[in-house]
Amino acid sequence: MTDQLRTKLAEIEDLEVALRLLQFDQQTLMPPAGSAARADAIATTSKLMHERQTAPELLELLAAAGDDDPVARVARRDTSKALRVPTELVGALAHASTAGQDAWQAAREANDFAAFRPYLERNIDLLRDYASCFADEIDEPYDALLDDFEPGMRAADVRTAFAPLRDELPSLVAAAADRPAATLSGPFPIAGQRRAVRAILERLGFDDASWTLGDSAHPFSTTIGRGDNRITTRYSEHTLESVLSSVHEFGHGLYEAQIAPELARTPLAHGCSMTLHESQSRFWEVFVCGELPFWQGAWELLAGPLDGALDELGPEGYLDAVQAVRRTPIRVEADPVSYPLHILLRFDLELALISGDLAVADLPAAWRDGVRELLGIEIADDREGALQDIHWSACSFGYFPTYALGTMLAAQLWQAARAALADLDDAIEAGELGPLREWLRERVHRYGRTYEPREQIRVALGGDLDPEPYLAFVRARAGVTGASGLV
Amino acid sequence: MTDQLRTKLAEIEDLEVALRLLQFDQQTLMPPAGSAARADAIATTSKLMHERQTAPELLELLAAAGDDDPVARVARRDTSKALRVPTELVGALAHASTAGQDAWQAAREANDFAAFRPYLERNIDLLRDYASCFADEIDEPYDALLDDFEPGMRAADVRTAFAPLRDELPSLVAAAADRPAATLSGPFPIAGQRRAVRAILERLGFDDASWTLGDSAHPFSTTIGRGDNRITTRYSEHTLESVLSSVHEFGHGLYEAQIAPELARTPLAHGCSMTLHESQSRFWEVFVCGELPFWQGAWELLAGPLDGALDELGPEGYLDAVQAVRRTPIRVEADPVSYPLHILLRFDLELALISGDLAVADLPAAWRDGVRELLGIEIADDREGALQDIHWSACSFGYFPTYALGTMLAAQLWQAARAALADLDDAIEAGELGPLREWLRERVHRYGRTYEPREQIRVALGGDLDPEPYLAFVRARAGVTGASGLV
Repeated sequence: MTDQLRTKLAEIEDLEVALRLLQFDQQTLMPPAGSAARADAIATTSKLMHERQTAPELLELLAAAGDDDPVARVARRDTSKALRVPTELVGALAHASTAGQDAWQAAREANDFAAFRPYLERNIDLLRDYASCFADEIDEPYDALLDDFEPGMRAADVRTAFAPLRDELPSLVAAAADRPAATLSGPFPIAGQRRAVRAILERLGFDDASWTLGDSAHPFSTTIGRGDNRITTRYSEHTLESVLSSVHEFGHGLYEAQIAPELARTPLAHGCSMTLHESQSRFWEVFVCGELPFWQGAWELLAGPLDGALDELGPEGYLDAVQAVRRTPIRVEADPVSYPLHILLRFDLELALISGDLAVADLPAAWRDGVRELLGIEIADDREGALQDIHWSACSFGYFPTYALGTMLAAQLWQAARAALADLDDAIEAGELGPLREWLRERVHRYGRTYEPREQIRVALGGDLDPEPYLAFVRARAGVTGASGLV
Repeated sequence: MTDQLRTKLAEIEDLEVALRLLQFDQQTLMPPAGSAARADAIATTSKLMHERQTAPELLELLAAAGDDDPVARVARRDTSKALRVPTELVGALAHASTAGQDAWQAAREANDFAAFRPYLERNIDLLRDYASCFADEIDEPYDALLDDFEPGMRAADVRTAFAPLRDELPSLVAAAADRPAATLSGPFPIAGQRRAVRAILERLGFDDASWTLGDSAHPFSTTIGRGDNRITTRYSEHTLESVLSSVHEFGHGLYEAQIAPELARTPLAHGCSMTLHESQSRFWEVFVCGELPFWQGAWELLAGPLDGALDELGPEGYLDAVQAVRRTPIRVEADPVSYPLHILLRFDLELALISGDLAVADLPAAWRDGVRELLGIEIADDREGALQDIHWSACSFGYFPTYALGTMLAAQLWQAARAALADLDDAIEAGELGPLREWLRERVHRYGRTYEPREQIRVALGGDLDPEPYLAFVRARAGVTGASGLV
C-alpha cells in the first residue's frame, strides 16, 4: 500500500472522528437551540466524506493496490458501495432520517401513528431506491439494507438463523413468565447509582485515561478516535437499568478499544459488524455481569452506594430480579430469554414493509397481532407498538436482527471462553478480568474489520454462528426440566 | 450572491462547526489517551477547510460576486489571505503549535526555559515565513500576525493606542498598589460556587436552551454553531475567580449569540475582531459585574450558596477585594487597573522577537527587566516570566494587544451605554438586563463581521478607539485626587 493511499484513507477516518463527535455531542451536551446548525454540520461532513470516498484519485490508488492487503480490500468494498448510490439519494436519506426522527418523537408523544405514517412511507420509498442501487447483487431488496449493518449477510441467512428461536422461544417464555421473582423498584438514589456504575465499570476495565461516562436520553457507546471511548447511560430512581445498560455499552467500547493499534486511521479500525459488536455488549451484560460470580465479588460496589436499598435482596435476589422472564411489550425492558421475540417481530415486519407485502397503514394492526402471537400479550396502544422504536424513523432497516444474532453469538463466545479459561468464575468473582479481556482481544477485538463477519466468527470460534448455545442458556434460565444450561 | 456561492461558503462554516467542537471537546471532555487521534482529526479538518477556501470554483464565484455584498467582501478577504500561504506552511505552523504547547507545558512545570527555547525559536522562524507571505501589504512583519486577530490594524496603531497607558499607568499603579484592601481567601465550597455561577449567569441572560456551562483547565468560551454557546470556567476553593471569569466568558458568548440570524452559515457570523470580542467580555466582567449595583441586587445569588463564607464582607467588601489594585507578576490574576501593564510588556517583547531585535535566549532577562520597569516588582522565576503564558507556544503572536485594546473599548462602550440608557444602575441592580443586552445587540453584536473593526467601532460609538474613558476609569479606581471616574 502506498503512503499516498494510506494518507487518503486516514483523512477519511479523521473526518469520521469529527462526525462521531458531532453526533455524540448532539446527544449529550448540545443545547437544544443548536440543533439546526448541528444538522447542517453533520450533513456537510457526511457529504465531504462521501466525496472523498468516491474521489477519482482514491479510486485509482485503490485499483492499483494489491488484493492481499485487507485495508485496500475493505476500502474498495466501502468505495464500491458508496459509488453505487447517487449523492442526491444520500442527501435525501439524511434529510428524511432527520425529519422522520422529529416526526416520530412528536407522534409517539401524542400516540398518533397517522401523523408519522407519511414519514415512514417516505423512508421506505427512499430505502427501496437505495436497495435498487444494488439490484444485481442481492436476492431481495432487504439484503441491501442488512448489508450495511451485517456485511455479506442475506435475509435468507437471518431466516435460517432465527428458525430455531421461532420454534422454541414462544413456549419457553410462556412457561417461565408467570413464575414469581424479585423486583427492583427502588427508590435507588441517583447519586449512589452514579458512584456504583463507575465502580463497576472500573472493575471491568474502564479508566479515566481513555474512557468517559456520561448521560443521555438513550444509552449508547461510541469510540471517537483511538484512546477515546465513551459510554453514556441514563438514571431513574425506580430502576437499576443504569447498571447493566452501562455494562452493555462497556462491551461495545472494549471491542473498539482493543482493536490493534496498527489499524488506527485505516478503514479496518472499527468493529467488524453489528452482530459482532452486539455479541460483545451482550457478552458482558448477559453473561459476565448477568450471573452470580461477578456480583458475589462486586456486591458492595453496587449495594454500598445505594444506602441500604438492596440490603434485603442481596446478590441472589438482585439476579433473580434481573434474570426473571417477563412478558413485556417493550423491547428494551425485556430479559435475555424473551428478548429475541421482540426482534423476530420487528424482522418480520420490516421485511414485509420493504418488500411491499405490508402497507404502512396496516403496520399498527400487524404489530398488535405479532405481539399476541409471539408473546401472548396485548399492547395498550401504538406507543407500545408501531411507535415504540426510533430505528425506522431514522431509515435504519436491517439493524434489528443483529441484536438477536449478537446475543446468540455472545452465548457461543461465552461457552468458548469458559472452555478456554480455567477457573473463570473464580477470576470473575475476584475481579480479575484481564485474562477474559485478553481472550476477547486475541479472538475478536484486535482484528477490527480485517475479516468479513462470517470469517471473523470462524477465526474466533472455529465454526459458524450457531443458535444452540443460546438455546441451551435460555432453557436453563426458563427452568425447563432436564435442560443443561451453559452455567 | 448566487445560491451556489452561498452554499460553498456555508459548507466552510459547517466544517468550522466541526473544528470548533473538536477543539472544545479536547479541552473539556476528551480522555487524555485520545489526544493523538484528536490532533489528526483537527489537522485534517483544518486542511480541508483551507482546501475549500482556496478551491478554484470558489474563487471564480467570488470574483463574479458584486463588491457591495459584505459576505462576498469578507469571503474574498479570507480567501486572498489563505491563498498567500502555502499549504505546507499551514501544516508546519499547525504542527509546530501542537509541539510547542506540549513543550511549553513540560518546560513550565520544570521551570526550564532552555527546554522550551528551540520550540519558540522554531515558531518565530515559521511566523516570519508566514509574515513574508504578506510582505507587499505590511509595514513590518508583526503587522501580518496582528491582522489575523485585528484585521486592518498595524503595529504602529497599537503603539499609538498604548502610548497614553504607558505614560500614565505605571505611576497610577505604584501609587494605588499599597493601599489595604479586603481579600478573598475562602475556603469557598466548590459545589456552592457552581450553584452561584449558574445563578449569576442566568441573571445575565444564560439559559439552558442555548448555553452550556462546563469545566476546563483554562476558562474559555466558544460558539459551536448558532444557538450553541458554551462557557467553561475553573474552580478553586481558595479564590472566587470562577465568578468573574465565567461572567467574562458570558460576554464573549453573548456577542456571538446576538449576531443576526440571517448571517448564520456565512463568514459574517462571527465576532468582528479580537478587540471587539474582548470589549464584550470585559464590558460584563469589569463594568456590569465589577461595580456595586449588580451585587446589591444579586448578592444572595453569590453569598447564599457559599455557606456564610462571604457574610462578613458583604457586597462592598467583596468589590473592595475585586477592585483592589495589586502588583502581581501573573497576568490572569491582575486587576483591571494594572492589567494593561502586563500587555504592554508582552507587546514590546513579541514585537522585538518577531523583528529579531530580541533573541529568544535573551527573553527571560528581558521579561524580568520589563516587569521591574513597568510594575516595579521582581519575578521569582521564569514560570512567572517567559514561561507564564501559553500563547507564543501556540504560535499566537499579535493576540496579546487585543486584551488591552478590548478593555479600552469596553470603557468607551460603558460610557456610551450609561449615556444612552436611563437609570442603568437601577436596572442592573434589579437584574433587568434586557435593555443593556439589546443596546449591545443593536450597536455591535448583530453585525458580526459586516464591518471592518474600525468601521464597526464607528457604527457603535460614532468615533474611534479612544483611551480616555479607560484612563478616567483607572484614575478613579486608583483613587487619584480630582479624577472624575466613569461611575
